[in-house]
Amino acid sequence: MTDKSPFAAPGAAADLEEGLALTPKFDADGLVTCVATDIASGDVLMVAHMNAEALAKTIATGEAWYFSRSRRALWQKGETSGHTQRVVEMRIDCDQDAVWIKVDQVAGACHTGRRSCFYRAVPLGKSGAVKLEFRGDKVFDPKAACGKS
Amino acid sequence: MTDKSPFAAPGAAADLEEGLALTPKFDADGLVTCVATDIASGDVLMVAHMNAEALAKTIATGEAWYFSRSRRALWQKGETSGHTQRVVEMRIDCDQDAVWIKVDQVAGACHTGRRSCFYRAVPLGKSGAVKLEFRGDKVFDPKAACGKS
Repeated sequence: MTDKSPFAAPGAAADLEEGLALTPKFDADGLVTCVATDIASGDVLMVAHMNAEALAKTIATGEAWYFSRSRRALWQKGETSGHTQRVVEMRIDCDQDAVWIKVDQVAGACHTGRRSCFYRAVPLGKSGAVKLEFRGDKVFDPKAACGKS
Repeated sequence: MTDKSPFAAPGAAADLEEGLALTPKFDADGLVTCVATDIASGDVLMVAHMNAEALAKTIATGEAWYFSRSRRALWQKGETSGHTQRVVEMRIDCDQDAVWIKVDQVAGACHTGRRSCFYRAVPLGKSGAVKLEFRGDKVFDPKAACGKS
């Protein structure tokens, strides 16, 4: 957690689970997991992470902000591609270490050009090696969007 | 990753993103993130983790298995409560470090007695302290379910 966090520290389990205060339980890297779903289809679009600043900015602006673990940097979704996420609703889970946002996604969420990052199905009932099955076409040219989303 | 992993090691980004092989990118703790959504409502029910063994068992059996970070143990969802999750569909994300399962959830997914762990909304457009808003009632008595789900 950074000193920019506007959130109080998490309390006991009873407060975390049944309380009215947003006291996110950031992990050792200062992050919570965020799941973004498509307000239109209900599909899971992506799973990413937020630090305190990203979470606070998302709440304040209603636009999705994340924290990139690989780049160690705050980023607004779509800041380079234009493929922003307007947050329609935000939920927090029982132990306040995961956030769910329902978003209005411009174009696609995935840097590969798909609407959702979850564009391959895993067949069930198998043991050993598994052959994935593609679902869903590309909705934008990832090269034209600078390979970022 | 344990020696029980039936999965090949992840390759280069192009293979991870556009390939047909399931080669999960487990983190330093040997885990991938798993999002479970409700096949009936589309709601996000919970976010948890799978190690290689949990993922392989889920694929083989079509029932959700997870790895508890706090208990350092493999567990089948609902093994004590009966509130199992039958997996209707599984997806893997672009970089293969997150799994999305659509499940047929018995009773409720949350150990607090709710259908979903995401039973509180975070109001948007605010700076500073945030007061959560409850959504959704309890669907089972968590004490009767041994406080576990």
